[in-house]
Amino acid sequence: MLHRDYADQNCSIARALEIVGERWSLLIVRDAFLGVTRFDQFERRLGVAPNTLTARLRSLTDAGVLERRRYNERPQRYEYVLTPRGKDLFPAIVAIMRWGDVHQSTNGPPAVVRHIGCGGALDAHARCDECGLIVNADDAEWHYGPGSRHEPGLRPRPPM
Amino acid sequence: MLHRDYADQNCSIARALEIVGERWSLLIVRDAFLGVTRFDQFERRLGVAPNTLTARLRSLTDAGVLERRRYNERPQRYEYVLTPRGKDLFPAIVAIMRWGDVHQSTNGPPAVVRHIGCGGALDAHARCDECGLIVNADDAEWHYGPGSRHEPGLRPRPPM
Repeated sequence: MLHRDYADQNCSIARALEIVGERWSLLIVRDAFLGVTRFDQFERRLGVAPNTLTARLRSLTDAGVLERRRYNERPQRYEYVLTPRGKDLFPAIVAIMRWGDVHQSTNGPPAVVRHIGCGGALDAHARCDECGLIVNADDAEWHYGPGSRHEPGLRPRPPM
Repeated sequence: MLHRDYADQNCSIARALEIVGERWSLLIVRDAFLGVTRFDQFERRLGVAPNTLTARLRSLTDAGVLERRRYNERPQRYEYVLTPRGKDLFPAIVAIMRWGDVHQSTNGPPAVVRHIGCGGALDAHARCDECGLIVNADDAEWHYGPGSRHEPGLRPRPPM
């Protein structure tokens, strides 16, 4: 429990923030949705100190948001992927992102989450603006948006 | 900007977290949705140190999430209410709450957000599970849930 001061709050928001409210945690989850899996990728993209990153990855793994998987035997190497519990954070990630798009972006959204196949963009409710369906993480793909430093288009996985 | 380390991230999630990612900020916003307006109410409910609360209320006011209004002349007294920008955090608040309900609550949801008139409960997309409509903050009311310390039912405003 990272936020011990929250512990006496009988509130699901407080309990969620104990896990994803610590600095960097939600940006690690964001990167995991983008397809980032490896320690050095998270470190390079986030510009976070290695000891902080190690602590956050451990917290998220202990909380069942990420799963640590060995992908190489010699030397032993691990990657981090979202569990179903982690993927359930998709509506929260999209809602926070869309709020930032609307209220904190000057050049338009840096990223646009689109409904695979349909191509519509997701709103703050993860609802496709083309077909009206609510979209989950597995049916969404990330694109560079007008506020990106890249040309608009599908974002490669794993990204830059 | 609270999270100066996030500043070089060209990302709407990072920009949103600069405002609402600091410890206590999102619980202050939660309480504002519940109808809390006054400093001493926030202080008592959150159990947060007064100097921390002062700093967070100032940050949220500077960011345009809360508006500071004088409600008494002598002595001068102020209250804090959500702006339209603050109310736009409703989908994010609901998404985080529902994730905590599903993954971190042992006795069921402490709170249930219901569609006024219809009575359906909101899911992680702020969608009413009765009529299927997406519900905004002004059309929602907060109820004590099965995991509350209170009897289930409409939560009074402003709450204890």
